Amino acid sequence: MPSPIPPAAAALLERFGRLSALEDALSILQWDRAAMMPEGAAPERATQLAVLSGLHHELLTAPDLPDLLAAAEAAAWEGVPDAVWHQANLAEIRRRHAHATALPRALVEALSHASSTCEAIWRGARQDSDFKAVQPALETLLGLVRQSAEAKAAALGTGLYDALLDEYEPGGSIARIDALFADLETFLPAFLDEVLAHQARVGAPPRPQGPFPRALQESLGRATMAQMGFDFRHGRLDVSTHPFCGGTPGDVRLTTRYDEEDFLSALFGVIHETGHALYEQGLPEAWRTQPVGRARGMSMHESQSLLWEMQVGRSRAWLAHAVPLWRAHFGRSGPAWEVDAVRRAVTRVERGFIRVEADEVTYPAHVIVRTRLERALIAGDLAVADLPGAWGDLMERLLGVRPPDDRRGCLQDIHWYDGAWGYFPTYTLGAMTAAQLFSAAQEAEPGIPAALAEGDGRPLLDWLRRMVHARASVLSTDALLTEATGRPLDAAVFKAHLRRRYLDEA
Amino acid sequence: MPSPIPPAAAALLERFGRLSALEDALSILQWDRAAMMPEGAAPERATQLAVLSGLHHELLTAPDLPDLLAAAEAAAWEGVPDAVWHQANLAEIRRRHAHATALPRALVEALSHASSTCEAIWRGARQDSDFKAVQPALETLLGLVRQSAEAKAAALGTGLYDALLDEYEPGGSIARIDALFADLETFLPAFLDEVLAHQARVGAPPRPQGPFPRALQESLGRATMAQMGFDFRHGRLDVSTHPFCGGTPGDVRLTTRYDEEDFLSALFGVIHETGHALYEQGLPEAWRTQPVGRARGMSMHESQSLLWEMQVGRSRAWLAHAVPLWRAHFGRSGPAWEVDAVRRAVTRVERGFIRVEADEVTYPAHVIVRTRLERALIAGDLAVADLPGAWGDLMERLLGVRPPDDRRGCLQDIHWYDGAWGYFPTYTLGAMTAAQLFSAAQEAEPGIPAALAEGDGRPLLDWLRRMVHARASVLSTDALLTEATGRPLDAAVFKAHLRRRYLDEA
Repeated sequence: MPSPIPPAAAALLERFGRLSALEDALSILQWDRAAMMPEGAAPERATQLAVLSGLHHELLTAPDLPDLLAAAEAAAWEGVPDAVWHQANLAEIRRRHAHATALPRALVEALSHASSTCEAIWRGARQDSDFKAVQPALETLLGLVRQSAEAKAAALGTGLYDALLDEYEPGGSIARIDALFADLETFLPAFLDEVLAHQARVGAPPRPQGPFPRALQESLGRATMAQMGFDFRHGRLDVSTHPFCGGTPGDVRLTTRYDEEDFLSALFGVIHETGHALYEQGLPEAWRTQPVGRARGMSMHESQSLLWEMQVGRSRAWLAHAVPLWRAHFGRSGPAWEVDAVRRAVTRVERGFIRVEADEVTYPAHVIVRTRLERALIAGDLAVADLPGAWGDLMERLLGVRPPDDRRGCLQDIHWYDGAWGYFPTYTLGAMTAAQLFSAAQEAEPGIPAALAEGDGRPLLDWLRRMVHARASVLSTDALLTEATGRPLDAAVFKAHLRRRYLDEA
Repeated sequence: MPSPIPPAAAALLERFGRLSALEDALSILQWDRAAMMPEGAAPERATQLAVLSGLHHELLTAPDLPDLLAAAEAAAWEGVPDAVWHQANLAEIRRRHAHATALPRALVEALSHASSTCEAIWRGARQDSDFKAVQPALETLLGLVRQSAEAKAAALGTGLYDALLDEYEPGGSIARIDALFADLETFLPAFLDEVLAHQARVGAPPRPQGPFPRALQESLGRATMAQMGFDFRHGRLDVSTHPFCGGTPGDVRLTTRYDEEDFLSALFGVIHETGHALYEQGLPEAWRTQPVGRARGMSMHESQSLLWEMQVGRSRAWLAHAVPLWRAHFGRSGPAWEVDAVRRAVTRVERGFIRVEADEVTYPAHVIVRTRLERALIAGDLAVADLPGAWGDLMERLLGVRPPDDRRGCLQDIHWYDGAWGYFPTYTLGAMTAAQLFSAAQEAEPGIPAALAEGDGRPLLDWLRRMVHARASVLSTDALLTEATGRPLDAAVFKAHLRRRYLDEA
């Protein structure tokens, strides 16, 4: 006969069920703000979100929680069904509790206030390309971020940067990231030169010309989502200025935006967000209301979106099947609509200033620049006043271009100005993870490439469901990737993928 | 120098600001459920709503609240700016607190459970027209409703029915309602005969024939909303199966549904919901987060929707301006599109079985039937088993028709089966209030009729804003209506309106 769940653990399950309902409600309200809310409701929505977040924080830092947690950890788990999941859940609870209690309330409020202030100033500063305008607010915010890093580092027993990183990438380590990025850094500059030389030789491909009516783009997006395995009974597609994947595992809300001159940007955006969405929809139903049942971390999440957007969506096999469908969908034809022309258009590489417009090859350089700089800022090795110059120097060294102004330099991303420090490296960790997972999937299931060549994402999704999604947070990111691919993350597969796509098979 | 707000009252302002943010969040999530949510998310949304409602209830019944309230009530209010509003706010807080604490938690949960169960069974029973199938569940639910009425009656010092009514119609009294409805009851049957005889003499009007494309109906609805004064910066129009007006005063979410064969139903639905919406948008900004700043009650709310839908929207003056716009909007013409034909179509009277399809003349009979029956059921004067028969008898007496089955009889409305007892009378109180307000508005501002005849709702809205909306809940319903119209509610103006529209000027 199975043993019952220890009472303290049962109490925590109930408590975190409520917390998860609050998180889900917050998530839907945030989606609504971006996709539905009329502009005049912004102040009241801010209040609603603050009140719900406050209740969430109260519940998460309730005085009886440490005792419950200690009792549950010390309880007898032999014979309890799913003991591994329960114990991993307790570990996640401890991590969340440590983050929530590390900061005194005054610091939390000061951070929230300084973030809002700095973000608002940044919007104007970016428009005017005037870094000096936001510098004081950024200095204030950075001071509080550093205080917060110190408090979290003490609570978690990590270094400063890792303490911030841990919120996005549980268990992440800047030492590991340094090693991985160093590998890329030695590889990329020369590789980029080769790719650009090759692309210059073959010339720029023609690009499908618009207009592409919005309604047609939308139906193509939905059809593609369905092809990938998105469950519309548990999610929807809408429009927002900044596309994202929000909502809850059982009610995924993803958004895109349409450019009637260029259907490829919305379409690949939808594929990207659907990758995120499939991860959420694949989380184990039985654990969805518990911390262990949530997605593992930002690098794993980004790996799911990039796997579909980059590894699959820009592959020869997938495009060979997809491009004729697109032609038929828009009722178009001509040289720009040849499969190979489209393939070349969506794998075009350029040295650019803007991260969100960057291609697969140059993207890591953008991320490495930001990771280096935020680390130096947090460590106190770089003064905020020196950020624009340091940005230009690093961009020049890593990518060979120096932005002509700060709007296209250190003012382009919202992250720092909004208080999100330690987030940037997860983009490139995600790209590397995606390559490693996709390669392992094809080795494990030789039917995957053939299915993809027929536009059938199901066998790939099945493997991802089994090896990644269904495991939620029961394993560490490292252990998860090792079980799925046979080894922890390294840059080898990613580099091999780039070499193959952009040189050997270009 | 003005006196400061007493500290206990300041604490309550803060507390009820949080409660109001929770209510607003709940309201947006409920709108989302009806208008946006994918069906598969229903169970998790139910959990989110339950958790937020539970937190709301905890906050509203916090142990320190009675002392704060007593201290605030006993405090010195002389010299405090807006003391009248503050004190009315305390009265509203006391009323809400009394409702929230009247029922033991076990009864609240039993009621919630029995309502869900009964409502689910009712859906099937209605479809099968099988009252017996839902009878046991309804008996259980009624037993709990009666217990709840007893507990609330004790807490509020009222009779059983008034205790339930008070939740929808604060300060409402069944004795007053009896007198008002008795007046209508002596008037309506003979009046209805006369109207039907007249309409038979002139014959049925031709009705505009579809199809009316949904997109065109939607743009017409939006144009009409704008004409009425709806502020799209603080609200939006969407689609749901059961149209409603939800959201918050600063973010009103109204819905409709489109029938491509009949644009009039959606259009008048939009006008109705916009009437509700204008009330919400007109609530005083400074008090929106407090109980006193919310709408007065259901009869006043319904008066705002019916004022626009019935008093204005079906008037000769408004239609003379609107119908040509509709013709142009749909690019149509012909006899069915003559102003007078449309007027006759939208003021057509019929003895029918279904309340939600009823016209302005027969609607009160439907409401009186339900009010009588629910009162008898709550008092224990009518057994649930005898409901179908009693329904048929009363319908026959009041409206001259007997439904051939229970689907078109006592199974047609969700209210009782979902636990909403004491709600029905507010529909007809609203219709009477609408007539009285519209008449007073035109007397007070002689420019209103001329403006309406030019499709300009602004002067009427200005008067409603001043006399009704801006007063929120600072006065009782009675006092509010007396200040606005010179006397408390009676049936005279409503009857005069019906006589004029359906006989004298028909």
